[in-house]
Amino acid sequence: MNITLKGNAVIGQSGGPTSVINQSLVGVIQEVQKYSHIDKLLGARHGVRGIVDEKFISLRGVGPDLLERISQTPAAALGSTRDKPKQDYCERIFASFAKNNVRYFFYIGGNDSADTARIVSELAKKENYELRVFHIPKTIDNDLLVNDHTPGYGSAAKFVAAAIMGDNCDNASLPGIKVDVIMGRNAGFLTAAAVLARRNDHDGPHLIYVPEAPVSEDKFLADVEKVYARSGRCVIAVSEGVVDQTGKSWAEVIKANLQRDSHGNIELANSGLGDYMATLIETRLGTKMGKKLRVRSDTFGYLQRSFPGFVSATDAAEARLVGRMAVQYSADEANNAGGSVAMLRKDGAYAIETILTPLSSVARNTKHLEARYIVDGNNISDAFKDYARPLIGPLPVVDAFE
Amino acid sequence: MNITLKGNAVIGQSGGPTSVINQSLVGVIQEVQKYSHIDKLLGARHGVRGIVDEKFISLRGVGPDLLERISQTPAAALGSTRDKPKQDYCERIFASFAKNNVRYFFYIGGNDSADTARIVSELAKKENYELRVFHIPKTIDNDLLVNDHTPGYGSAAKFVAAAIMGDNCDNASLPGIKVDVIMGRNAGFLTAAAVLARRNDHDGPHLIYVPEAPVSEDKFLADVEKVYARSGRCVIAVSEGVVDQTGKSWAEVIKANLQRDSHGNIELANSGLGDYMATLIETRLGTKMGKKLRVRSDTFGYLQRSFPGFVSATDAAEARLVGRMAVQYSADEANNAGGSVAMLRKDGAYAIETILTPLSSVARNTKHLEARYIVDGNNISDAFKDYARPLIGPLPVVDAFE
Repeated sequence: MNITLKGNAVIGQSGGPTSVINQSLVGVIQEVQKYSHIDKLLGARHGVRGIVDEKFISLRGVGPDLLERISQTPAAALGSTRDKPKQDYCERIFASFAKNNVRYFFYIGGNDSADTARIVSELAKKENYELRVFHIPKTIDNDLLVNDHTPGYGSAAKFVAAAIMGDNCDNASLPGIKVDVIMGRNAGFLTAAAVLARRNDHDGPHLIYVPEAPVSEDKFLADVEKVYARSGRCVIAVSEGVVDQTGKSWAEVIKANLQRDSHGNIELANSGLGDYMATLIETRLGTKMGKKLRVRSDTFGYLQRSFPGFVSATDAAEARLVGRMAVQYSADEANNAGGSVAMLRKDGAYAIETILTPLSSVARNTKHLEARYIVDGNNISDAFKDYARPLIGPLPVVDAFE
Repeated sequence: MNITLKGNAVIGQSGGPTSVINQSLVGVIQEVQKYSHIDKLLGARHGVRGIVDEKFISLRGVGPDLLERISQTPAAALGSTRDKPKQDYCERIFASFAKNNVRYFFYIGGNDSADTARIVSELAKKENYELRVFHIPKTIDNDLLVNDHTPGYGSAAKFVAAAIMGDNCDNASLPGIKVDVIMGRNAGFLTAAAVLARRNDHDGPHLIYVPEAPVSEDKFLADVEKVYARSGRCVIAVSEGVVDQTGKSWAEVIKANLQRDSHGNIELANSGLGDYMATLIETRLGTKMGKKLRVRSDTFGYLQRSFPGFVSATDAAEARLVGRMAVQYSADEANNAGGSVAMLRKDGAYAIETILTPLSSVARNTKHLEARYIVDGNNISDAFKDYARPLIGPLPVVDAFE
């Protein structure tokens, strides 16, 4: 190891927050203290927005107690942003870096953030400005390429699995049909985690719908009717990104219909998939069966990514690790092209290793739930359970008579 | 103590489940083992429904390991019911009791269940059938009379406070306006618990609306505008039962308007308060301020009463205690009129004691959030924090830079 490039570093957080994104931040802050190639460590307020506005806070002197509390805090402690910089925005980022002698840029985020990192990195190269850009993975969607899984996923998945576990008990207690809408517009990993709530064949979730497995209204209702006939109840875990037989998102179709129908002052633009599915069951299935069905829906919403005090210990540790590793990689001249820290799973008992992969390999594109994890278009396989269980760790204890 | 009445006992669970209602069930099962006045202990499936259908399971022989797991399980392990028996239904309950030599009836539930217990008790007296009826308190709404607070409230309140804590971090991270809808149709206790999420003046929830403090759309929007102008963001905790200046529930007004407006195949009868408030802010406040506001809403839904592995230890212990105490009271001939177990708070450091209060004293009517706990119609007082904190116990750690 031979570090020739010295200067300041900027760290930022981007995109939808997670419960453990601050673990990665703290990992970077802690690891930087061990090295001399980084002088100032500047935290950018609200990601790239804070870089162009030069809103930085100094992170070198933050005490260990505050760091420990920050690491347990959900959502981006530096502030996040939804800005997706184009060329001119990236030029302003670059100008801010040059002005502040920033030579290292650590950016925690998903595939969009990796792409921002890539553009900035290429711009610096073109300008002959030595800048080393390291992307640190983060997303509850678990949809980054190269990675076996992503920091943030395990904790969100733990929340979802536990929530469905409890909701299944509630539904067994007061039987009916329950629709639970889970985050994930394009990838079904988070919704698939609902399967871990099931201890036996009686337990919900009885049906699981992910964006990768299109389902029509007719098929959906037939599925529900079948489960209800067998069990007298039905717990449904559905991804917000579920698509119909034509490949269109249910949510978009609902929204388009709502806007067309709206003639009041208030347009219920946020009206959701859960309400729609519940109403569909009440009306169409209820009419068909000739009875008033008890149907409810919940949309788990932001709690999935922000609920504190209920993280996966494995996820928290891995999120910390990828932060530390980014700094370690930055200290090695061999990595002067920068890159994205990625997590690979080792063979055998659960363990991971990190690699540094080119920014372009994780930028922009997303990973989808593999076909082998999907069963009959409405269920999730045991192979997925084996994949996801170690990421989530122990779930709460529940049991039932009989 | 001199127990003259011997026979079988029935235990049932009723109404909306909680995270700790099974603690009370287990408390009864465990305590019964110490006494000889109760022969069989029959668990009624789905409350009064299981009594009239004679769907009982024997609870005397359940092993300690299963009991311990059941006690940690949210929602009613025996099954619950929404049935509110009238006279003839109560006569069928009574007939089932007489047939099965049931002399003790333990009913875990809220004020409706206390009323059922009262009717059945009076019916038995009229028929000269010796029956001792004990109501065991349970409700996340915390709205039972006589009681300082109710089992189930502390855990739901802990969930709400933690959820708002995390959501406030999320909102600080990606600033905007966030509406969080919390359970409680008539009483604001659960929504008020959101105040415990606030560590300082910057933290959300910035506005808290409970059913006891009517608020008009204009006042609501003015409140939000003021907070947003000061902080650039706003987290709002609102009870599902919030009422307008005329005393009408917002949710009912919204529902009536929706049904009037609907001319599609699907009537979004479940469309909610959160969506409505968010849209109201986006349209009216957004227009007034001449900008596109980032507004989101979440409805915490059933997770508040069913999320496992996140209960208040105090709440769990108290729920177990009221179950045990019901059996102890039943063993004392002095309590041959039956009654409802109630929790009173002692003076000084937090501690409770139980009393047996007449069934009629907790039946039907509900308690409301006291005026002294409400500040300016949109906030909750420090006195409430002092009241609620010991019921909830420690909250997760979160912190922020600066």
